[in-house]
Amino acid sequence: MIGRFLSLEGGEGAGKSTQVRALAAALEARGIPTLVTREPGGSEGAEAIRGLLMQGDVQRWSAHTEALLFAAARADHVEKTIRPAIGAGTWVISDRYIDSTRAYQGVAGGIDDAAILALHAFGSRGLLPDRTFVLELPPAEGARRAAGRDGSGADRFALRDENFHVAVAEAFDRFARVEPDRFRRVDATRPPAEVTAALLDGLADLLP
Amino acid sequence: MIGRFLSLEGGEGAGKSTQVRALAAALEARGIPTLVTREPGGSEGAEAIRGLLMQGDVQRWSAHTEALLFAAARADHVEKTIRPAIGAGTWVISDRYIDSTRAYQGVAGGIDDAAILALHAFGSRGLLPDRTFVLELPPAEGARRAAGRDGSGADRFALRDENFHVAVAEAFDRFARVEPDRFRRVDATRPPAEVTAALLDGLADLLP
Ligand SMILES: Nc1ncnc2c1ncn2[C@@H]1O[C@H](COP(=O)(O)OP(=O)(O)OP(=O)(O)O)[C@@H](O)[C@H]1O
Ligand SMILES: Nc1ncnc2c1ncn2[C@@H]1O[C@H](COP(=O)(O)OP(=O)(O)OP(=O)(O)O)[C@@H](O)[C@H]1O
Ligand SMILES: [Mg+2]
Ligand SMILES: [Mg+2]
Repeated sequence: MIGRFLSLEGGEGAGKSTQVRALAAALEARGIPTLVTREPGGSEGAEAIRGLLMQGDVQRWSAHTEALLFAAARADHVEKTIRPAIGAGTWVISDRYIDSTRAYQGVAGGIDDAAILALHAFGSRGLLPDRTFVLELPPAEGARRAAGRDGSGADRFALRDENFHVAVAEAFDRFARVEPDRFRRVDATRPPAEVTAALLDGLADLLP
Repeated sequence: MIGRFLSLEGGEGAGKSTQVRALAAALEARGIPTLVTREPGGSEGAEAIRGLLMQGDVQRWSAHTEALLFAAARADHVEKTIRPAIGAGTWVISDRYIDSTRAYQGVAGGIDDAAILALHAFGSRGLLPDRTFVLELPPAEGARRAAGRDGSGADRFALRDENFHVAVAEAFDRFARVEPDRFRRVDATRPPAEVTAALLDGLADLLP
């Protein structure tokens, strides 16, 4: 039996990291082996590339260079972590994946969605999740949550203004409407346990 | 006045690093401001990516991931170093450029030449040198030269067998035949000063 591949997307502080852990625990409780991973990163090489992407000035990389680095990190992540795990029957849950690149590099860098998907086709043979959840939360609320979080360090991507975060949220919303089979949108304003229940509900058709 | 962009290509130990310096000195002596640079690297960000590319096991990166990393490094190099210098009237001489990626990743990774050029079009708007010199030397002779060189550390790319280096040399030869306006092939078995003279001869049409 092969595993499934799930991704969680959404703006800063929407609860992605909280929910990938909660979802993995819920699936494990049902006897499903899971692997939690994240992007950029999720393999040794991709984590090294993540270091280059997340550090330094907001202007460190041009939008095009950044898109290539994300594609390289994802190619390594897919090859070294995601495909082997799925092949071994494990369910993989990724904290961000290709749709974050589409949203952030598309909005921030004005990079064509088709170009980002072409890089993904080249690097990762276009691997898409079986299901992608968009955690929907007003950006101002996400910023409040993130500010209240222990050990939160502002990285290159958190340092943008509110318009930017609104545009990112709209991009996720657009992607979800265009691909309704892959995406489920989830109201992330609710308490964590309710969000987890909504995620489980949104993958009922995939469960054994 | 805008500057020119020159690249030197060829196998290991062919004399590229020796000749970029000698050519820059010869051009400076003619009153032409020059900038010597190299790939992968040539800008702060690209040198950081170079660190990821050159270290570690030969199998560290898949061919596709490697091609994306080279494209990212080149995009940064072009944006931060090459275009500003050319724009300021400086002649840029690069120790390896896109044709090394085409030869090495094409031969070693079986990556399509068209795909490598598509990544270059995306990352660097397809910038090509005004002139590219291929330093032609039998690979066995290049290996002997490199072995005799002070401080030569074997990197991930030097650790290949002879067939590989022959295939790389054939690839450079093929590129030169397909684009005769951009390329000049130079016999690199001769003493350094004669090679430098051949390079100057091969860019006579570009000199002011
Ligand atoms: N449903 C929720 N209700 C209230 N607070 C929450 C909820 N989910 C998570 N939080 C809290 O909000 C903060 C941000 O959550 P989390 O780190 O999971 O978000 P994230 O989407 O991973 O953020 P980032 O994009 O910055 O990585 C944390 O302090 C977390 O405990
Ligand atoms: N024309 C030449 N004749 C003999 N020896 C040479 C000549 N040119 C360079 N060398 C010597 O050969 C060695 C390799 O030269 P160099 O480092 O310039 O080659 P390279 O093409 O940059 O190699 P690499 O691909 O490993 O960077 C050096 O020790 C150099 O001094
Ligand atoms: Mg998180
Ligand atoms: Mg050299």
